[in-house]
Amino acid sequence: MKNRQIPKGLRDLLPDEVKVKREIEKKATKLFRSYGYEEVITPAFEFLEIIETGTGEKIREELFLFMDREGGILALRPEMTVSIARLAATHLQNADFPQRLFYVANVFRYVQPHVAQYREFWQVGVELLGASGVWADAEVITIAVKALRDIGLDDFKISLNQIGIFNSLLEESRMRDDEKKLIRTLVERKDLVELSRCLENLDIDDGLKEAIARLPVLHGGLEVLDQIPYLEKNKGASKAADELVKLHDALKICNVADNIVVDMGVLRGLDYYTGVVFEGYSPGLGYGLLGGGRYDNLLEQFGFPCPATGFALGVDRLSLVLGHEEEEPVPYLIGGENFRLIIKKAEELRKQGYIVQLDVEGHSKEVLEEKIKASKRKYRLIYIEERE
Amino acid sequence: MKNRQIPKGLRDLLPDEVKVKREIEKKATKLFRSYGYEEVITPAFEFLEIIETGTGEKIREELFLFMDREGGILALRPEMTVSIARLAATHLQNADFPQRLFYVANVFRYVQPHVAQYREFWQVGVELLGASGVWADAEVITIAVKALRDIGLDDFKISLNQIGIFNSLLEESRMRDDEKKLIRTLVERKDLVELSRCLENLDIDDGLKEAIARLPVLHGGLEVLDQIPYLEKNKGASKAADELVKLHDALKICNVADNIVVDMGVLRGLDYYTGVVFEGYSPGLGYGLLGGGRYDNLLEQFGFPCPATGFALGVDRLSLVLGHEEEEPVPYLIGGENFRLIIKKAEELRKQGYIVQLDVEGHSKEVLEEKIKASKRKYRLIYIEERE
Repeated sequence: MKNRQIPKGLRDLLPDEVKVKREIEKKATKLFRSYGYEEVITPAFEFLEIIETGTGEKIREELFLFMDREGGILALRPEMTVSIARLAATHLQNADFPQRLFYVANVFRYVQPHVAQYREFWQVGVELLGASGVWADAEVITIAVKALRDIGLDDFKISLNQIGIFNSLLEESRMRDDEKKLIRTLVERKDLVELSRCLENLDIDDGLKEAIARLPVLHGGLEVLDQIPYLEKNKGASKAADELVKLHDALKICNVADNIVVDMGVLRGLDYYTGVVFEGYSPGLGYGLLGGGRYDNLLEQFGFPCPATGFALGVDRLSLVLGHEEEEPVPYLIGGENFRLIIKKAEELRKQGYIVQLDVEGHSKEVLEEKIKASKRKYRLIYIEERE
Repeated sequence: MKNRQIPKGLRDLLPDEVKVKREIEKKATKLFRSYGYEEVITPAFEFLEIIETGTGEKIREELFLFMDREGGILALRPEMTVSIARLAATHLQNADFPQRLFYVANVFRYVQPHVAQYREFWQVGVELLGASGVWADAEVITIAVKALRDIGLDDFKISLNQIGIFNSLLEESRMRDDEKKLIRTLVERKDLVELSRCLENLDIDDGLKEAIARLPVLHGGLEVLDQIPYLEKNKGASKAADELVKLHDALKICNVADNIVVDMGVLRGLDYYTGVVFEGYSPGLGYGLLGGGRYDNLLEQFGFPCPATGFALGVDRLSLVLGHEEEEPVPYLIGGENFRLIIKKAEELRKQGYIVQLDVEGHSKEVLEEKIKASKRKYRLIYIEERE
């Protein structure tokens, strides 16, 4: 017998699992369409040079790479936003209005596999291209909240931040790039002990130190913004904070503020974000369900200066939370001795919308009844005794 | 500006192209479901060792290969049947009845790109596992015909063969393996000149030579079987021919015989086929639309002896033939000065099933009217002048 292993971190989806996945995709894409978003499809792999644009160092370490026979290095896509940006710069520079695009796609990362973390996983997401301002961000966050609601999740939060706050504070600190990177990682990890140890060793303003040290624990309503010392002294940070307040107000008008938590520790792992960032999670779960934000500089790198905002939702992770609920129709199983009559009956029933399986092996009625008894599934047996 | 090229042979699908693709998938999968088939999903890549099982030499030369960091060589899947066989051997050995599975998947081949020939392309297909006999083959061929009909193609044929005829004749000839391979290629290419030149040089029975030389031109009704000299002398070939006759009778009962042509030149490029093989094409087109057949020995190689039959349909190729037909609903575009009222109106309309785009940028009525005039698309504008 040949080996039948699959590579580490991959998996097969059997019919019941596929049904859950398809239900999630159907509900999400129905919602996206109702907001005027239209689907695009990009190739499963791109030149490495494209993928490297705007994605962070962490993702670059997780790429599946291979050589193009025509020269160049290829990478399986690790996420969709960069590919959509490339697509828009290639095909949509003359398109009108803001472009509303969505996708359903598999993406690939060389991660250490564990629960809800595969090396190939599925995302649905939207990108709103060509619109800046609070109402564009409010639209995609509203869609994110409604997607989780429509899919059937009732206990979830969207953590919201504006990375201008963190970035402006760090800019003022004049840290070295490697220091910035370390601080960012520690804030994201909410590693308070290591963070304050690191900050102590830095030669920066004490007020600034205190402000950065507090970021990981600041989450709740808009009042957390008042708890950042130094904020009003830093122009960039206070401008970003004002934007966050306006966005929060907009999300109230959109009737989704109940699901929003302001969280200064959300920075997102990708380099392309420039403003609002957000993550969706469910309190009982140890992993995020969706993530997104504004990326106003990414498309420019492909020759198409254009503000943009969007999010992606992890279909596999949601599948794990939800399971299969929908009531299944019971299929017919038709057997008998005369295939002309069997096929006629089957066609009639299929035309009425029923699922009909034929006993293509020509078993007797008794055998079919036994098979149904032994099966975990239900069938409605029709046995046609009649000959012609 | 960064390069925004995509690798040779790949492409982006824009909204209108995606709509055609999704319509085809929807119609095909609805049909598959009505016959009791259920969807499975396998990983986009597998160990090379798995892919090599049963696929032909040609496909092996067309693989996208890369190294697994854990060791082993990986290949992007070039087709789905081998992966489904592996899945069934892994997960379904204790499942009941014949298993009816379908898939919608992207597959990858390093081919020379030209019209309707990409390096990543999409297939929908069915596999009927665990059933032998004429009615199993008749079922999948019937589904193939109905899929093309449902999708909207009216001028197409399915070329049908039983490769037992060709294989048995070649077996008797006692050619060397390289000679067999060459003959097979020439028969498939219908290269009559080269084929007869090759056969002349072989030291085999003259009747056999004549039989093999005629195969490429034998297509039409079942009467072509009478035109194969030597057929009745070869046990394997005449048994295979009998099966073809029975299958043809079954396809009449299934009301699809009008679309069937018997064609002795159809051998299929894959090594795993063992019996009935078929290909779908439309007379005006220079490329095939679907292909399939019986592969009774493939699952055994993964430790699960099990007869099987199925087919795959090329979604991209069908998209090229069909184009986008469905009438599009005209979306609403809502603008105004008061976002509370705009969002309320938008929500009302979405609840009624309409597609609603918001003017997130807050343009004036005049600007929106101009934008709509300049657009190639239609919009129904609602501008809410009211303040609160």
